[in-house]
Amino acid sequence: MIVVMSHKATEDEIRGVIEKLEENGFKIHLSKGVERTIIGAIGDKTRLGCMNLETLPGVEDIVPILKPYKLASREMKEEGTVIRIGDLEIGGDTLQVMAGPCAVESREQLFAAAEVVKKAGARILRGGAFKPRTSPYSFQGLGEEGLKLLAETREKYGLFIVTEVMDNATLPIVAEYADIVQIGTRNMQNFQLLKELGRIDRPVLLKRGMSATIEEWLMAAEYILASGNPNVILCERGIRSFETYTRNTLDLSAVPIVKNVSHLPVIVDPSHGLGKWKYVIPMSRAAVAAGADGLLVEVHPNPSEALCDGAQSLTPGNFEIMMNEVGRIAEAVGRRV
Amino acid sequence: MIVVMSHKATEDEIRGVIEKLEENGFKIHLSKGVERTIIGAIGDKTRLGCMNLETLPGVEDIVPILKPYKLASREMKEEGTVIRIGDLEIGGDTLQVMAGPCAVESREQLFAAAEVVKKAGARILRGGAFKPRTSPYSFQGLGEEGLKLLAETREKYGLFIVTEVMDNATLPIVAEYADIVQIGTRNMQNFQLLKELGRIDRPVLLKRGMSATIEEWLMAAEYILASGNPNVILCERGIRSFETYTRNTLDLSAVPIVKNVSHLPVIVDPSHGLGKWKYVIPMSRAAVAAGADGLLVEVHPNPSEALCDGAQSLTPGNFEIMMNEVGRIAEAVGRRV
Amino acid sequence: MIVVMSHKATEDEIRGVIEKLEENGFKIHLSKGVERTIIGAIGDKTRLGCMNLETLPGVEDIVPILKPYKLASREMKEEGTVIRIGDLEIGGDTLQVMAGPCAVESREQLFAAAEVVKKAGARILRGGAFKPRTSPYSFQGLGEEGLKLLAETREKYGLFIVTEVMDNATLPIVAEYADIVQIGTRNMQNFQLLKELGRIDRPVLLKRGMSATIEEWLMAAEYILASGNPNVILCERGIRSFETYTRNTLDLSAVPIVKNVSHLPVIVDPSHGLGKWKYVIPMSRAAVAAGADGLLVEVHPNPSEALCDGAQSLTPGNFEIMMNEVGRIAEAVGRRV
Amino acid sequence: MIVVMSHKATEDEIRGVIEKLEENGFKIHLSKGVERTIIGAIGDKTRLGCMNLETLPGVEDIVPILKPYKLASREMKEEGTVIRIGDLEIGGDTLQVMAGPCAVESREQLFAAAEVVKKAGARILRGGAFKPRTSPYSFQGLGEEGLKLLAETREKYGLFIVTEVMDNATLPIVAEYADIVQIGTRNMQNFQLLKELGRIDRPVLLKRGMSATIEEWLMAAEYILASGNPNVILCERGIRSFETYTRNTLDLSAVPIVKNVSHLPVIVDPSHGLGKWKYVIPMSRAAVAAGADGLLVEVHPNPSEALCDGAQSLTPGNFEIMMNEVGRIAEAVGRRV
Repeated sequence: MIVVMSHKATEDEIRGVIEKLEENGFKIHLSKGVERTIIGAIGDKTRLGCMNLETLPGVEDIVPILKPYKLASREMKEEGTVIRIGDLEIGGDTLQVMAGPCAVESREQLFAAAEVVKKAGARILRGGAFKPRTSPYSFQGLGEEGLKLLAETREKYGLFIVTEVMDNATLPIVAEYADIVQIGTRNMQNFQLLKELGRIDRPVLLKRGMSATIEEWLMAAEYILASGNPNVILCERGIRSFETYTRNTLDLSAVPIVKNVSHLPVIVDPSHGLGKWKYVIPMSRAAVAAGADGLLVEVHPNPSEALCDGAQSLTPGNFEIMMNEVGRIAEAVGRRV
Repeated sequence: MIVVMSHKATEDEIRGVIEKLEENGFKIHLSKGVERTIIGAIGDKTRLGCMNLETLPGVEDIVPILKPYKLASREMKEEGTVIRIGDLEIGGDTLQVMAGPCAVESREQLFAAAEVVKKAGARILRGGAFKPRTSPYSFQGLGEEGLKLLAETREKYGLFIVTEVMDNATLPIVAEYADIVQIGTRNMQNFQLLKELGRIDRPVLLKRGMSATIEEWLMAAEYILASGNPNVILCERGIRSFETYTRNTLDLSAVPIVKNVSHLPVIVDPSHGLGKWKYVIPMSRAAVAAGADGLLVEVHPNPSEALCDGAQSLTPGNFEIMMNEVGRIAEAVGRRV
Repeated sequence: MIVVMSHKATEDEIRGVIEKLEENGFKIHLSKGVERTIIGAIGDKTRLGCMNLETLPGVEDIVPILKPYKLASREMKEEGTVIRIGDLEIGGDTLQVMAGPCAVESREQLFAAAEVVKKAGARILRGGAFKPRTSPYSFQGLGEEGLKLLAETREKYGLFIVTEVMDNATLPIVAEYADIVQIGTRNMQNFQLLKELGRIDRPVLLKRGMSATIEEWLMAAEYILASGNPNVILCERGIRSFETYTRNTLDLSAVPIVKNVSHLPVIVDPSHGLGKWKYVIPMSRAAVAAGADGLLVEVHPNPSEALCDGAQSLTPGNFEIMMNEVGRIAEAVGRRV
Repeated sequence: MIVVMSHKATEDEIRGVIEKLEENGFKIHLSKGVERTIIGAIGDKTRLGCMNLETLPGVEDIVPILKPYKLASREMKEEGTVIRIGDLEIGGDTLQVMAGPCAVESREQLFAAAEVVKKAGARILRGGAFKPRTSPYSFQGLGEEGLKLLAETREKYGLFIVTEVMDNATLPIVAEYADIVQIGTRNMQNFQLLKELGRIDRPVLLKRGMSATIEEWLMAAEYILASGNPNVILCERGIRSFETYTRNTLDLSAVPIVKNVSHLPVIVDPSHGLGKWKYVIPMSRAAVAAGADGLLVEVHPNPSEALCDGAQSLTPGNFEIMMNEVGRIAEAVGRRV
């Protein structure tokens, strides 16, 4: 950490900062420039939070040098993490496509969706039983009934299941039915939930908060890792910007960045990132070209009858086109779907 | 709602949209322009979510006309809501200042803070017992022990207490000890928690999500109102922008806007909004000038020893200055502190 | 256009709005709902700007229905525009890569860069003679001397030249030397310059403003088109967001959106979009997968000696890798480099 | 400046960075921590731009320590700048209100506006003769004719004139007629124009770019100051954010920040910042409470007939109310209007 002193800082003020740092066990490097004195401090950064150096007289700025995440960092673990669920690998050479309806609505709908998903070659079925909705008046999901339908569909079609959990109260049953437990964008910093997710034995799909920096996202992953669960899959799903044409701004550069600074696998959700089905196919191609380990897409047997988010769902026909096009891109980057 | 048809929409496609709307009980107004046909639809908008009109052939855009919130709207309730806690009023002529440390650290610290708060004329003490922290390695709060210290301090100093709740599991004890229950920015769309807050008999201080639009913020209030709790206090605390000089961008225009479209009281938290204590005083003045019903500020008996967020905490001396300056502004807008 | 009346609007106020619209030649469609009256108006929208309907009593909101751009829209011209410069096509099946140093520094540097660009198979050399710099103390470019070096390099290596113009005063000489005239992000709404660009006979590369919506970007293109120059190439180069890890947030979804709503070709500049060379290759692949018609990348014979933006420049070796990888993606989407 | 080396940097790489810095005349302070080596460098930072340290092997990050602006900084000039125009002072105890129509439309309109402005006690008349408009089809201003009307109005009413310049070609005539020359948000980084403004003998009102950080805004001021004109008035006018309810997000915290880091006066434009007249009065109060040196507001004798931006213009009656309310706030902060 670097402490930048004000150009008006007195010798006493400089000494005050150094003393406080040394009291806390830091080793000091002092640089006196013409315009500023800067103090480098080396030591146990977990003590930093409590020192409030910014409040000491003469201090202008504090510049952290080390990244705040440890377990999630590539430095800690050079090799990319590959998560195994049965015979499935996430983070390996084969891309994984998770597809299905936004919300579980009925057995018929789910079976029809599963059929489409399986036929096109994807192996993971998505579908929400508990739905976070902006309006209290919108459809809130089927709850446990939805989980049961997902389990039934898994048996029938031999697919894996990913579904969202919204709170600690329902985590046990979600974890019982799901193969992968999903955390939505609005819960990325629900720290009580993150801690609890560290204690389950299911992989966690952690969506990026819609206004989370990459660092904050990795810190959310750190919560789960630090609580004991090493199997975190990151999912870029669009961030908030001033652009109103799309629902969110899909930040695909997050993909190579995360692959560079972290060892965790990362997938992309173009359906929520764009909010309009017609852009899902080109952005799926782009995600894979950028290096994503997989995709999360909404497919509905009949989007115009969907109980939520039909506008961003692919039809079965379009999903098949997507799978073909994504397959060609995967090959071009030396991977396969 | 208005459905804008594509310039290439056929007569059949137009008819298809109209039929779907009529099936769902909507009354139709058709306008055929030179370049576009637009369809106005009047009816029960709660059915809109399920129609997915965007997915019908020929549809270019859907333009909602009515605001999605009802109970929170000024239309529903012309008169401003005044929330009463004992002899205290929030939303009335007297502004309420909620002040105290970011986190409860010890009895000594809390008593010292309460003394400062009371002496300067504020009546509500803030202090976190459960702390949402970006890093799993940061101080997470004293938990129930902190709540007990708050209650003890209330008795001794005759102040009211506002403190944060982070999940449904701890809501009962937080509601037991607190006079006002606070929802932090990261939980603004924790819908399970919002629903539960509708069932308690304590006023709720609802912080704006750091990337929430005003409409989404009011929809979060709507969740609480619709679940049965009419006492919601809104709190602007800064939004995320590209500016990095401050921790957040305090959106003071939210104050007159919320007062215009909603009947709920609104207060401002300049400490989190700015993240640097030296700007808290001018922005407190500005908040009151803009029409805020109160302030939420961090005051610490000794900011450089604080366990969290010392950099944005006022010293006792600065807090007194703030109270004086804010008092003069309050008078200039016909109110008092 | 739709005029939404307040729920408290009187009959007189509704009549007032209708009269004003009819005076201006609009045809009216009136829809009275339970909660709102809305007025649809069909007519010459160029008169709308002067009516200030929002200021009439009883008006709550104005909702435009038509896009404000005409000449740039896909509706106006169904077929994609292909721009021809000599035997080169931009917007056709072959992707065009524009590469070279941020700034022209010397004959040696430019010749070395041109050699690299040509060898890797690109046909357009970029290089700034007039440089917009955030600081008045930074290198401002070689000016006309730089243009002459570009022209000399064109002769020697048989490459086409793209270079930036910063104002009307230097436009004539830039247009004399350049094959494509580039407008930087900070000048996207320099309307005096846009109008003048409509009068030259060179294609214009129009970079998206760093906080411009897609609609504003197309309106800037509209200025050029409306002034008489049909050859506009759009260039996505990253927008401003809260994320600080990268210099900008590259908005690749702009590519399929622009291709959908406009007929103009669109290319991507990942060097400025990211600001870090190590992410330029994956994002170049992603841009092509998303449907871009070409790329604009910074290549420097020796980035660590560059006078500007070395941190985002590819080395010759990395540029060659990029060209190969991008070639494979191009093939996967049915195009070629 | 601090160079942070990668945790994998070799001794040779560290030596390479140090050598490059020393070659450029920097004095070095080396700190070897357990996890990182960091290199502090003290010297002539104008040489930094050309070193491209980020491209050297082993370098992870570069952290600048000094602010890039000099002449605009409070460090350079402790005392606040007061700009004098005739007997008028901007930046002194008296706040200055600049008011008038968005665009000059006719002699009648301008005289009527001037009457309102003068009667309410303001001393500076605003009005655009050259108008930057998003659409090429919108009213572009009266040009020189408008300037003449402004001059005529100045004579008749004894007001000072502020009006916008859009390019170097018209700068001489704008500077001839205007008392203060305004630079719009879209031209904040039109560097050719900024340089030229340094050579005129008129104060410059520099609006913040709609996506400019405070640092970039001060760097734009630095361009003018470095070119020889010391009289720069900064003007906050709203920044771009995700919020769509208002046209922009007025960043009032910029006011105390700019007053802290710079000696230049700063005023606020709530009309463009909000885009809706009904929020202009409360935000004018807030701006003054935050410490602004003045206001720039749109007033139109008849907003519903305005040729541009009527929706954000105050009526004469509302302007009078604003002046009264702002006067009371000014008094509360020890100033006057």
